Amino acid sequence: MSLLQRLSFNQMTADPWSLEQTVHNCSTSGIPYIGIWRHKLGGDTKKASAMIRRKGLRVSSLCRGGWFSAPTAEERRKRVADNRLAVEEAALLGAPVLVIVSGPANGQTLEDARATVLDGLLAILPDAEKAGVTLGIEPLHPMYAAERSVVVTLRQANDLADQLSSSAAGVIVDVFHVWWDPEVMQQIERARGRIAGFHVSDWPVPLPGILMGRAMMGDGVIALRKLRQAVDATGYDGPIEVEIFNEEIWKSADDGLLERIQQRFLAHV
Amino acid sequence: MSLLQRLSFNQMTADPWSLEQTVHNCSTSGIPYIGIWRHKLGGDTKKASAMIRRKGLRVSSLCRGGWFSAPTAEERRKRVADNRLAVEEAALLGAPVLVIVSGPANGQTLEDARATVLDGLLAILPDAEKAGVTLGIEPLHPMYAAERSVVVTLRQANDLADQLSSSAAGVIVDVFHVWWDPEVMQQIERARGRIAGFHVSDWPVPLPGILMGRAMMGDGVIALRKLRQAVDATGYDGPIEVEIFNEEIWKSADDGLLERIQQRFLAHV
Repeated sequence: MSLLQRLSFNQMTADPWSLEQTVHNCSTSGIPYIGIWRHKLGGDTKKASAMIRRKGLRVSSLCRGGWFSAPTAEERRKRVADNRLAVEEAALLGAPVLVIVSGPANGQTLEDARATVLDGLLAILPDAEKAGVTLGIEPLHPMYAAERSVVVTLRQANDLADQLSSSAAGVIVDVFHVWWDPEVMQQIERARGRIAGFHVSDWPVPLPGILMGRAMMGDGVIALRKLRQAVDATGYDGPIEVEIFNEEIWKSADDGLLERIQQRFLAHV
Repeated sequence: MSLLQRLSFNQMTADPWSLEQTVHNCSTSGIPYIGIWRHKLGGDTKKASAMIRRKGLRVSSLCRGGWFSAPTAEERRKRVADNRLAVEEAALLGAPVLVIVSGPANGQTLEDARATVLDGLLAILPDAEKAGVTLGIEPLHPMYAAERSVVVTLRQANDLADQLSSSAAGVIVDVFHVWWDPEVMQQIERARGRIAGFHVSDWPVPLPGILMGRAMMGDGVIALRKLRQAVDATGYDGPIEVEIFNEEIWKSADDGLLERIQQRFLAHV
């Protein structure tokens, strides 16, 4: 089987495209999977799901649930309710995974915020189990600790998954977020059986920005193949999402982006 | 004793100032310590040392040695030779600590680059021991892994210090680099007896940039006092360096910067 059969196109890699365009382009290019963002669903998940299915694509994951670390109990309840909705949406889309980005400290201490993440995950776990959707806990790079995620290492994600102790609790390995970690190989091995997704992009030197700095595979320093082989060695053989936030790529998306991705994917991942 | 008696002004916090200006201003403001950068010494370390002493200041550390992770053996030898020179300069300045920034992967794998860091440290350790200068291994934030330092966690710095097993091997705790780490408290405790320096600044939200994004203490989200108390609890009672890279602060340095730092230091550290 060609590795291309595992390629998933995360739709934020071409933000200017509508969902319809993205699905059409992936279908035309023979890309089998798509990674979906909730804010791109246009309010009608059933309709979006039917359209994706009609084009023969499968959804690798829905992005994103989480953001549990709100400072007030009321806000935390709202976040949990929204996560339940996200689980339903994932199920409607046939997405096996809801990607969980934990959220920032939000005025709390890191310890308190981290405790609210576990609480939030425990609250929605029964919904995920019932819906057959895996909660994919994604550690973000430590440079996002203040603004996006108090979960910043794969060790933490594994610890959380241990505490949830459910087949509906998994972890996401995104190379951009974890490549620097001296423990990454041992934590990938520790994640055996619970890897719910593998995301690729690259880390360019110099990094042009914090949010929009990701590069195309091969344009950076991440040992992509080594990490992919480590993930595969745990038995993971599911989709590999290409998720690149980069305005230059957005601007030139209409100029053969998907073919470029397929080439780079084969050459570097 | 007031905490102000432990304040050290790292001279890069006011890059536009010459060494003479910085020493004069610190002396006038009653700041007892200064953190020195090698490229600011102007080629005559003895003269600089005498001038600093004349003004009654003490040098808390010399920045920086390290950068061991060169891709060729010849280049690595040059780096080691330069580090020996840095140890001598630290001794001449009466600086008890040479800050070690390990260097980036530089085209090598992270594992190989990390091995060259240990080799480099082992090579210069006898010089440091003889000179009475502690090698302060400073982990940098993981966002610098590609460009500045393959040592990115306090755990790694502690591991290296364990391997060196010498009273001349210490670690530097810089809050900007380690605050996000779920293990930071336990690794600070593990560093008991080998903490060679404590550096403060803050992490603003949003972070305006990768290199120049640091903020004045109190203008960010780092739990400064908690970290300082954890460091103190290990028995460290040495200087606390204020090291902020921020162009806005550089531009307004002449407008009461040292008094502002003293106020913020007392209020937040």
